[in-house]
Amino acid sequence: METSFTLKTRRTVRAYTDKALDQALLDDLLESAFRASNTGNMQAYAVIVTRDQARKEAMAPMHFNQPQVKQAPVVLTFCVDFNRITRWCEQRQAEPGFDTVQSFTYGAIDTIIAAQAFCTAAEDKGLGICYLGTTTYNAGPLCELLELPPLVVPLTTITVGYPAETAMSGPLSDRLPMEAVVHEEVYHDFTPEVIDRVYGPKEALPENQQFVTINQRSTLAQVYAGIRYTKADNQRFSQAWIEVLRKQGYLD
Amino acid sequence: METSFTLKTRRTVRAYTDKALDQALLDDLLESAFRASNTGNMQAYAVIVTRDQARKEAMAPMHFNQPQVKQAPVVLTFCVDFNRITRWCEQRQAEPGFDTVQSFTYGAIDTIIAAQAFCTAAEDKGLGICYLGTTTYNAGPLCELLELPPLVVPLTTITVGYPAETAMSGPLSDRLPMEAVVHEEVYHDFTPEVIDRVYGPKEALPENQQFVTINQRSTLAQVYAGIRYTKADNQRFSQAWIEVLRKQGYLD
Repeated sequence: METSFTLKTRRTVRAYTDKALDQALLDDLLESAFRASNTGNMQAYAVIVTRDQARKEAMAPMHFNQPQVKQAPVVLTFCVDFNRITRWCEQRQAEPGFDTVQSFTYGAIDTIIAAQAFCTAAEDKGLGICYLGTTTYNAGPLCELLELPPLVVPLTTITVGYPAETAMSGPLSDRLPMEAVVHEEVYHDFTPEVIDRVYGPKEALPENQQFVTINQRSTLAQVYAGIRYTKADNQRFSQAWIEVLRKQGYLD
Repeated sequence: METSFTLKTRRTVRAYTDKALDQALLDDLLESAFRASNTGNMQAYAVIVTRDQARKEAMAPMHFNQPQVKQAPVVLTFCVDFNRITRWCEQRQAEPGFDTVQSFTYGAIDTIIAAQAFCTAAEDKGLGICYLGTTTYNAGPLCELLELPPLVVPLTTITVGYPAETAMSGPLSDRLPMEAVVHEEVYHDFTPEVIDRVYGPKEALPENQQFVTINQRSTLAQVYAGIRYTKADNQRFSQAWIEVLRKQGYLD
């Protein structure tokens, strides 16, 4: 099977069978993921593997009780990690200075590159994955649960397992047309006409129209900005996130 | 070819043949990339495609004149983009509030997921890629060159083309053993013995020993912390990066 084909027909999987995820397969997939590009070959990331059911139960509220946390055989928390490199430097008469916003940023890029490489490798083996964006919302409690030392920050979480049959049916989720995302040479800002053209098909989907009705709004954008990703929530979760970055040592 | 096999034998490619990258293939790869997971299906990213040689010449210094910028047939700058969504909201009687650190963070995660999905798809088609970590160092000048409006921030750059023969020879770059990266259930901090064990093989590589000698240091860690990623540089590039995030509207 070609990769691009796998990518094109993939779907997020939130329900899994009871089948366990073999340790050797998991190791193999992680090893593949770590072959992806990274800054200066520092591999400034850590992956925490959660299999213990009690820990999954404790973790679930931190991910707003999304059922896949408790139901997936394995939960992986991908973290930026400059703790390991700092310890290495200290043990080798070098003076590390990775406690900065820029280091966090390149570490974060490398962490997500590894996470996505893992997902592609996993899907190629017939597994299903789901990213949990709640990780940066509740990074503070996750630091405690996973016993993360300074300079280690959880950035994303992936649930992984064999897809339940129900998880593989229905149409693929929609995507915006290329015109909405790809810009030739310079950024071409969006005129009202282009906004209508690129968002029209998404707004016309029956499931999105139903979504607007159920939420008692008049436009899909109102559901996004007024319910799912409100300014108040974005600000509240920004404060919590900044506090974690400060506590873990990446700010000032 | 299995994905995990491709991932396992892949290498960063910094030199390309003269062969052009067909527009239909590029579109196909980007379309595959945009099938990857993203937060709330907002696709909060933009990709700027650079093919124009004059623009590559102008861009090269922003990437510290790494030769692949001018030499690659295509340079892709992956950006966080909440400008498009904000315009959509404004045009649909919704009140957007994505000018926050948390929104930037989930947008950044989605941007890198898409970038890495692109790389896997490209490598599967026989292309070679190189990430340019310099993007967040010189994000300010890149915003100007690519005419990025508020709420659009360049996060990573990928050069892509057909690998020159020389780019595919030599051993694969080393990676740390799994023990350095993977933690069962909780983070297991590193004892001096474990640091020695996980960094020993990397330090023993002839190319790394030569690297230490050339740089007139006594340990590899000193080359990393004292030359390649110094505290002074990390701080300087942090300031520049924070200024860009502020100017583009994600702070305060």
